[in-house]
This record gives sequence, structure tokens and C-alpha cells, in this order.
Amino acid sequence: MNDATPTGPRSTGIAPRSGVSRFAALRREITSPTLSFLMEAHDGLSAKIVEEAGFRGVWASGLTTSAALGLRDSNEASWTQVLDQLEYMADATSLPILVDGDTGHGNFNNVRRFVRKLGERGLAGVCIEDKLFPKTNSFIGEGQALADIEEFCGRIKAGKDSQVDDGFVLVARVEALIAGHGMAEALRRAEAYHRAGADAILIHSKRSTAEEILAFARAWDNRAPLVIVPTMYYATPTSVYREAGISTVIWANHLLRSAIVAMRETASRIAEDESLMRVEGQVASVKEVFRLVGNAELEEAERRYLPARPSVGAVVLAA
Amino acid sequence: MNDATPTGPRSTGIAPRSGVSRFAALRREITSPTLSFLMEAHDGLSAKIVEEAGFRGVWASGLTTSAALGLRDSNEASWTQVLDQLEYMADATSLPILVDGDTGHGNFNNVRRFVRKLGERGLAGVCIEDKLFPKTNSFIGEGQALADIEEFCGRIKAGKDSQVDDGFVLVARVEALIAGHGMAEALRRAEAYHRAGADAILIHSKRSTAEEILAFARAWDNRAPLVIVPTMYYATPTSVYREAGISTVIWANHLLRSAIVAMRETASRIAEDESLMRVEGQVASVKEVFRLVGNAELEEAERRYLPARPSVGAVVLAA
Amino acid sequence: MNDATPTGPRSTGIAPRSGVSRFAALRREITSPTLSFLMEAHDGLSAKIVEEAGFRGVWASGLTTSAALGLRDSNEASWTQVLDQLEYMADATSLPILVDGDTGHGNFNNVRRFVRKLGERGLAGVCIEDKLFPKTNSFIGEGQALADIEEFCGRIKAGKDSQVDDGFVLVARVEALIAGHGMAEALRRAEAYHRAGADAILIHSKRSTAEEILAFARAWDNRAPLVIVPTMYYATPTSVYREAGISTVIWANHLLRSAIVAMRETASRIAEDESLMRVEGQVASVKEVFRLVGNAELEEAERRYLPARPSVGAVVLAA
Amino acid sequence: MNDATPTGPRSTGIAPRSGVSRFAALRREITSPTLSFLMEAHDGLSAKIVEEAGFRGVWASGLTTSAALGLRDSNEASWTQVLDQLEYMADATSLPILVDGDTGHGNFNNVRRFVRKLGERGLAGVCIEDKLFPKTNSFIGEGQALADIEEFCGRIKAGKDSQVDDGFVLVARVEALIAGHGMAEALRRAEAYHRAGADAILIHSKRSTAEEILAFARAWDNRAPLVIVPTMYYATPTSVYREAGISTVIWANHLLRSAIVAMRETASRIAEDESLMRVEGQVASVKEVFRLVGNAELEEAERRYLPARPSVGAVVLAA
Repeated sequence: MNDATPTGPRSTGIAPRSGVSRFAALRREITSPTLSFLMEAHDGLSAKIVEEAGFRGVWASGLTTSAALGLRDSNEASWTQVLDQLEYMADATSLPILVDGDTGHGNFNNVRRFVRKLGERGLAGVCIEDKLFPKTNSFIGEGQALADIEEFCGRIKAGKDSQVDDGFVLVARVEALIAGHGMAEALRRAEAYHRAGADAILIHSKRSTAEEILAFARAWDNRAPLVIVPTMYYATPTSVYREAGISTVIWANHLLRSAIVAMRETASRIAEDESLMRVEGQVASVKEVFRLVGNAELEEAERRYLPARPSVGAVVLAA
Repeated sequence: MNDATPTGPRSTGIAPRSGVSRFAALRREITSPTLSFLMEAHDGLSAKIVEEAGFRGVWASGLTTSAALGLRDSNEASWTQVLDQLEYMADATSLPILVDGDTGHGNFNNVRRFVRKLGERGLAGVCIEDKLFPKTNSFIGEGQALADIEEFCGRIKAGKDSQVDDGFVLVARVEALIAGHGMAEALRRAEAYHRAGADAILIHSKRSTAEEILAFARAWDNRAPLVIVPTMYYATPTSVYREAGISTVIWANHLLRSAIVAMRETASRIAEDESLMRVEGQVASVKEVFRLVGNAELEEAERRYLPARPSVGAVVLAA
Repeated sequence: MNDATPTGPRSTGIAPRSGVSRFAALRREITSPTLSFLMEAHDGLSAKIVEEAGFRGVWASGLTTSAALGLRDSNEASWTQVLDQLEYMADATSLPILVDGDTGHGNFNNVRRFVRKLGERGLAGVCIEDKLFPKTNSFIGEGQALADIEEFCGRIKAGKDSQVDDGFVLVARVEALIAGHGMAEALRRAEAYHRAGADAILIHSKRSTAEEILAFARAWDNRAPLVIVPTMYYATPTSVYREAGISTVIWANHLLRSAIVAMRETASRIAEDESLMRVEGQVASVKEVFRLVGNAELEEAERRYLPARPSVGAVVLAA
Repeated sequence: MNDATPTGPRSTGIAPRSGVSRFAALRREITSPTLSFLMEAHDGLSAKIVEEAGFRGVWASGLTTSAALGLRDSNEASWTQVLDQLEYMADATSLPILVDGDTGHGNFNNVRRFVRKLGERGLAGVCIEDKLFPKTNSFIGEGQALADIEEFCGRIKAGKDSQVDDGFVLVARVEALIAGHGMAEALRRAEAYHRAGADAILIHSKRSTAEEILAFARAWDNRAPLVIVPTMYYATPTSVYREAGISTVIWANHLLRSAIVAMRETASRIAEDESLMRVEGQVASVKEVFRLVGNAELEEAERRYLPARPSVGAVVLAA
């Protein structure tokens, strides 16, 4: 499906940055009139799997990247720890990645450092939400405090002024509906963020139906591209989003959630059986792991860059 | 199954170090006369899953920790990048972790820095193999170069002299069989490593049956605990290892391998359907993700340490 | 002056943690009735110099650690980037280190993660100040916002509950005088922080005389040890602090400030002369650099752990 | 002298990457027919001082960067720890930086990862030496082992194939003279490295006069630019290098060495006096520290991006 991953011209075992810019590619996905999809990844391996499945962009989820590390979605990892994980993802895939930037990790100054470093590492865009550092996951509790609008607009402007590539995408996430402030406040904020320079608006909802989102979309009337995250209102047919003129749908956390089930079953089975027999045929082969991470490229590179190896019998000196 | 994880006395969202020492716990697993099992983990989340499945120890695999990052098993991540991932694992579980230390990341001096830092971060033991930095996965190619015995013994001694806790376990991995040097060389190396201070010997094989391993075990005659990794000879019944007096079996990479299959299926399904409908019921719930990473502890801590929150209507000042 | 540095029992090139606990040592300095002094360091090398000068404790300054990296004292480095720099310091000296923890890098939860990680890496104590993240240096601007007292007490409690050693010292820094809130507010805050569990109070002032500090000390009447930072009121004789019953004086930034002058002069001289001639005799020798970082220990360790090296003429294989 | 530092258009507190490429700037310094000078820096602050002194390029010394961390010049820091320190330098100055890359941190594969990451972080070039990982400082011991020529040429090719900008400079450092292999071997290696793609040759010597270097230069006859490091033969007049057609002189470690003397004197003085009185006038002012790290830019940015601050009396909610 994706010839590029194992066989492409990766001179370093790191997916190439050059060629079609990932910044431009993400911008195209977000701004094109047709509906786009971003698929969640939480590490380098899951990013590769997203690419092989044929998606054209990755959502680097804050929730799942934290959870994979064993952490809560409350800024327990520092922004540079997050950056390190994101860099593995960017190196593992040639797809553009939209980063879940939480609140931007502090004030405008932290945002501009974060945005600058994202760009240098090849991350194509960031989404920041109008809450305060340290954040709490949107699906937890009621009535979380929102940022002052003007202060948050400062974060947006600072982020845009710090991008290393004109194509870099900054998405402003409106939490007003989730926090219980109503539609008018959500629209007021979206408009302010748009005028502050946000390239798109992510309107978030934790309702089990899309009504609230669709009402927002109608009132918003495509003043800027709209991004949605149908984690809670998953049963809504995608055609509805197309008709509503939504720009981008994020499938926000499902790879990690499927991995949990699989790993738990595998761990239980091995624990019970004290044996691999029932498991062996059900899991990917070691060879397939080698393929996924690109061992073929390394072998090819060894032929290019390494002298012929000493034969087994040769005296081997310590490194 | 494991009450400790979500409800235990974790004052920081980090599993406690105190109480029964993890160093002592790993030592007991490795040295006890009964057969022990270590289950692979590659990040904080999979370490939690190992704990919940009832295992008493974790194998932090070099292959799968690298692969999760999207990297090859060839020391592409630096030793401190590896250390960072290991620290997430140590913080996510209260189980003792045996670390796959590859070749020790250089010479004796690199080994002692690595061992010292592992101990400080609560990793209970390390396994180092008698090859040269940078390493190649044992299942790749033929006749990989081995380290000079005396030089490798220096790495073992240096490691043992650098442990921060007397219970820290250093396992020496013998690659002589895999590299095609034969049984006599394997035994000669095991004996040398044992005398240099290794707490246990890991004898590795890539044959599809356990014959070679069992022959080694007979000749070795329990001079020190034996650890095995039946990835290739998975069909051997575990009773055989018990009879052979093996100390510890490592299930080395199966959680990652099962996650790959699950994530690939989920990604494909969502890509095809452009919908979450078929996937939603098959994956862990968001609430279950919250439980796994210990959100309950954080909520409890907020009640203890945070003043009552301002109500929704309050003026919110920027951080 | 300090035999321990180059010749001590450092099996890893990292100063030993064992023996007399650094936690206990810092606690003794802070709580003893005699006046103690902590000297600023900003990296491993300056920490070694503090030790060789005979000081019994190090102040890891936020201002100078940031400035050495080229950053401003405004939480531009993430808390884990700071932690990395602190770990180099802890490894470079056997002295106890009191860490300038700024505001604690967020809320109570960030504080407890920071405190836990400090302890694991051998940092003996932390000072946190009653301002908001991200911080601004105390000597900049007027009327900086202070933290809510109750919220800051939550940070103190959370920090104390997360220490890995009973000796760990948490100092609460009162910014009320600097922020213009007056003596009564400063005392009210100090009392609250003390009751919340702070081991000592740092009372900060930016006046050019010590009057304000001394008035505070009189009113405080040693309810808990007092720490001061006479950067601005440097001309006050130290005998005054002894008489006032001050516990600890921090010389907060002078090594970096002296290094700036020296490096600037050296750089200018070499730039003008296009020659090292005038500089060579004025700077430390390369051999002295080797001594400071402990090369002797490494050479000794090579004799212990490395086989005799191949002679120059031997065939050398690639690592 | 350098208006750019405190007043330039640095939107993030990070020196801008755009404008004249630093890759091109370093290439020009190394390849131009006139003699160029690179001045050592070991952290962000010293890099700023190099820039303010009027130099046109920075040498990020392995010896002094390690020593500043308190480490020995023996690859005790991992390559990503080194990278983190280099990134601070690159962010602190707009000058091009030539990185002392030691041996490249392993084999060809480690070199290509290192080179790729250097480029992404704005480091303009790297120098790698023909020894084995882990390295030993060139001024220590006799007859250090050299790399196999063909293997080292593989590292050079791999590095050049991994550069992110055509201007990136790779300098190959020949250790043959220092290791006692003589002039013919040095020339043979230089020629091989040049043909493998090195942009320049660094010929290193530990003699106290420049004779050996000059003899090499004559024989080399400018087949590629020559770089030298007159640390040991410091008394040679620079005019001699101009006449010999040397391309670039590296003043390799003198800022750190001058800082050591200054910090030691300051520490001793404060320890003896228990007072800052003698020291205060001799060190840079706190205000000067603020200027050096660019506080003015941050204050200006606050006016641009932050809403007017709440007045002192306002209720302040916790972040």
C-alpha cells in the first residue's frame, strides 16, 4: 500500500523531509473543500501504520501520546518530552502531522518556542485550545476554566509569528461548548481566534450526537475551515459532515484503544498458558516488525557504507 | 486483578519506589529455584498491562522499545533516549523491570554510566550481550562479530561496580551459539562472565527447537541461574524448561506484535469505512484509558491539594 | 583542597551518592543554628569549582542555569530540560544542592513530579516561590502577580508528600515584599507556608539595603529557618545576618557573572590579536581541565576494566 | 558591537534561522581563500559572547562542552545529550557553528542520524575524526587506535548523504600525526577522506611547534581547505598560517579555560570573605546578564502579545 516506507530513499532511516513539503500537504488537507481525515498516532510505529493504511495525515493526540507513556492527559510530560515523542513520529512517517498542542504549554512565549521547535522537527501544524496550563482532558469534569479571549489570541498570534514555514497550520480549538458557555460564546471565540490568525477552528463537543457541532457549523458558515473530533458522537454518518461543509475529521484515539485490547488479551493468554502456543499465530511476525521499521534500508546502506565484514573466524578487537 | 495500579498510594502519579524493593524483587525472580516469567513491555502503558495481567516482572525489550519509536534494533536511539523511555516504564508500574541493555552502549565506561542511571531511575536489572556497539538484532544475518571475552568481562565488572543497590541484577547474554561458535565457546564465555560477576546467564538461540538451549543447560549444570528467550522455539512446552532447571523465561516481544495486528486492522477499517461505527465496540473505552493511567488518583489529589475551583462564571485570568 | 574530586571512589565518573546522605547534609546546613552559605553553580563544572573552594552546599540558580543555556529566566527551558542540567550538577559534585525550582513548573501535580525526579537524581532540596507559571525574574518589573495562598500551600504539601528521602528540604520563597504587598502580607504568607510543611522560608528583597529583610527576621522570630539572597543588598556585613539569626545566605549568581567578564575579555583579546599569545598564560591549562573533570579516575578505571590495548601497529577493526 | 543580539527580530527568543543561511555562511568561511577563525563556545551564553566579540563562526568543542557539563572528553554524554547542548548554542546565536562531532558516535548509521539532526537544529557543519567510539581526547596517551580508512570513508559518505542543506560542511579530522603514524599515512588518509566527500581536512597535532602541520600543508598543496587547531603550538604567529595557505584556525577551548580561572577566583574570594564586597564590582551586573540573554525582546513581545496585566490589587487565580 505504501511503497515509500520500507523501500524509499531514506538515507538515514529517517523519513525524508524534502520533496513535497509536509507543511504544504497539511495545509492542503485542512483548507481543501473536500472532507479530509486525520488518524491518531501516539508513537513512531503507530504513525507508520497510519501511513500504510492510506491516510494522508496524522493526528498526534495528546491523550494517547500521554497514555502510551503511562501518563495522564494533564501535562505530566514536559513540553520537550512531548517534543521528543513527536520527533520520533515525524521521523517514522512521511505524512504531515497535526500536533495536539494542548494549551500551548504556558503563555505566548511558551507557545512560540513550541511552534518554532515543532517546525524545525518537521511537524506540520499544531492545535492549541483555549484553556489554561496545566490542562485537564476535555472529557473530565464540568465547567473547566477557559482562557481570557484576548490572552488566548496573543498565544495564536505568537504561534503564527514563530512558524518556520509559511505552510505551517495553527488550529485554534474552542472549548466553550464543552465548558458549558453556549453557542454564542463559542462563535464569539471562534471569530476572535480566526481574526487573530488561526488557520482553522476546531470545535469540540462531548455530546453523544453531532447536533451541537452541526448548529455551530451552520452559524459559522465556513468563515474558516472547521475541524471536528467525533469521539463521543461516533455514530453520526460521515455524509452528514460532508453536507455540513466540515473540513477535517479527526479519528482521535482509536489505534491506542485497539492496541490496549489486543495487548491485554495477549498478556492474559500468555500468563494463563505459560506458553506462546496460542499467541504465536495471532501476532505479527518478528520479520514483519523488521519490515515495518525499515530493516531493508539499513541492510542496503551497510552494503553501501560498510567495508566487507570480517569473517567469523577473524580476531575481533574491542570497540 | 491489580488493585495497586489505579488505587494505590501514588502521591505523584508515579508508581512508588518504596516498600518492597524492586531490586530485591527482581533478584528473587531470577535466583529462585522455581521458574519465573518476564513479559515484554515497550512503553509505560504496556508495562501497566503486564502488571494487570498478573506478571511479577517486566522485560524492557530493546527490539520492541526501538520499534515502538519507529526505530531499528541497531542503537539508533541514544542510550539516554532509551533511558527516558525506560523511566516512563519504571514510573508506570510497581513491577521490577529487567532492561535489555544491548551491548551496554559502548565500552566499560558507558556501561557503568548506564547501570548507574538505570538504578537511580528504579530499573531493577540489566542484560548486556557480548557483541560490539552499535549492535545488530540477533535474528539478522549470520556470524555477527562477538566481543573479546576479557573486554566483555570488563564491562560486566564495571557494571556490577556501578550498581546503586546491592539487589541490582546484571545478566550476561551469550551470543556464541547464534553467532555459530559452538557449544564449547558458549560454555567458556558463560563461565568467564559468571566469574566476572554476572548474576545470571542468558543463553540465546535462533533455532526453532530448544535442543541447543537444553544441551547448554545440561552442560552448564546451574552454576548460575539461566535465562532463556523462546521467541524462535516457541513450541517447546514450558514443562521442559522446568525440568531443565531454567530460572527465567522471557516472553520477549509479543505485546508489541499483538498491538501491530490490532492497530493495522483498526486503521484499515476506519480508512475503508470513513466511520468509527464498526470500530467503536471493539476498542477500549476512553474511560478505560483514563482508568489505566490512573485518573482517579489525580482527581483524589486535586481534592487534597487544590483549593475549590472558581465556578464557571468567574473571571478567569491568564496564567 | 578537595581530594575527593579527582581521586575519590567514583566508580562511574559520577560522584558517589552513598556514604553521608546529601539530603541529610543539606538539611543540616539549613536547620543548624550557625550561619550557612550556598554558592551558585549553573553547570557541572561550576559545581565542581564550588566544591573545591570549600563550600558545603550549592545553589542551582534558575537565573544562571537559564542564562548559561542562553535563555531568559522565564521558564523558557522545560522542567525536564532543567532537570537534565541539574543532574549533570548532581553527578559532578558530592555536595548537596538546593535547586531553584521557580514556581514549581505549574500546579501541585507538576510540583510533585518535579520533586520526585529531583530526589531520584540526588538533588537534596528545592525552593519554590509563590508566583505563577511561567515566572518572571524577581528583579524585573513592578507588582508581579502572586499565587493564591491556599493554592501555593497545596504546592508545598504536594511537594513534601512526594519527596523520596525524609531529609529532602523544601524552601518556600515569599515574594510579597518584592511585589509590593508589605510586611504583614509577607509574614502572613510565611506563616501559612511554614504550616503547610515548608522546611524553611526564603524571604526575598530587591532593596539595596537589608533593612526590610532584617525587619522581617525580627518579626518572624525564627519560627522556621530563614534563607536570604543578598544580591542587591550585597554591602551588608555578614555579621549582621548572624546577629539576626539568619540560617542560610545564598550567593546567588556570582560565578556566572565572573565567567562572563573573563570570557568576554578573552574573546575580545583573541579577536583583536588573531593570536593566543596574550591569552595562553592567563587561562587554565588543558591539563587542569582534565584534572577538574576527573581524567585520572578514568585512566585508573581503564587499567582495571580494559584489556591491555593493542599496540599502534596492530590491525584495527571498525567498531 | 553586535546590535543583532538584544534588539534583532527574534520572535521567539531564539535567534532566527532565516535570512542568510548559516550553512552557506560556514561554507564560505571554510572555503574562502582568506584565513578564517572559529572561536570556541560550550553553551548558549558563551556562543553569544563569541558573536558579540565579532567572530564570524563558532567552534562547538567536544572537550569544553563535555567539561562544562562536568564530564570527560570520552563520549560520556550520549549523542542526543550533546545535541541538546548544541541546540541551545544554535538558538543563542545567529553565527554558523562547526560542531566537534568526535568520531561520529558510532558507525556510519549513527553518523547519518547525527548529521541529519544537526542540520534540522541549525548547526551548520560537523567535524568527525578517524578514531573509534568511544573516543579519548587527542592529548591523552600515546598511539591511540585509528579507524580503518575504508570504514571511516563510509562514515564520511554517509554523513554527506544525510545533510539537510547543500551548504552543510563536513570536516574530516586526521589523527595520524598525533597517533604516531607519520606524514605519509596522514596524507594518505587526508586524500582518501577528501575523495570520500569531506569538504575540508582538519590536520591535528600535539607538538608545541607548528612544523609538522606546516610540512603537511606544503605536501597537501591545498587539494581541499585545511583547518588547524593551534592549542599546543599556540606561539606560532598567525602570519605563518596565512603564508601556508591554511583555511581556518580554531581557537578551541579558551573561553572555558578563562571562565575556570575567573570562577575559581570568585568562589575562593567569597568563601574566604563570607561577603560579596570585593567581588561585586568585578563581575558583570545582573542587568548585563539580562541584556545578554535578550530580556528586552521578551518585554517588547509581552507588550505585543499579552493583554495589559492585572494591577497589583486584583484577585489572582491560580494557574
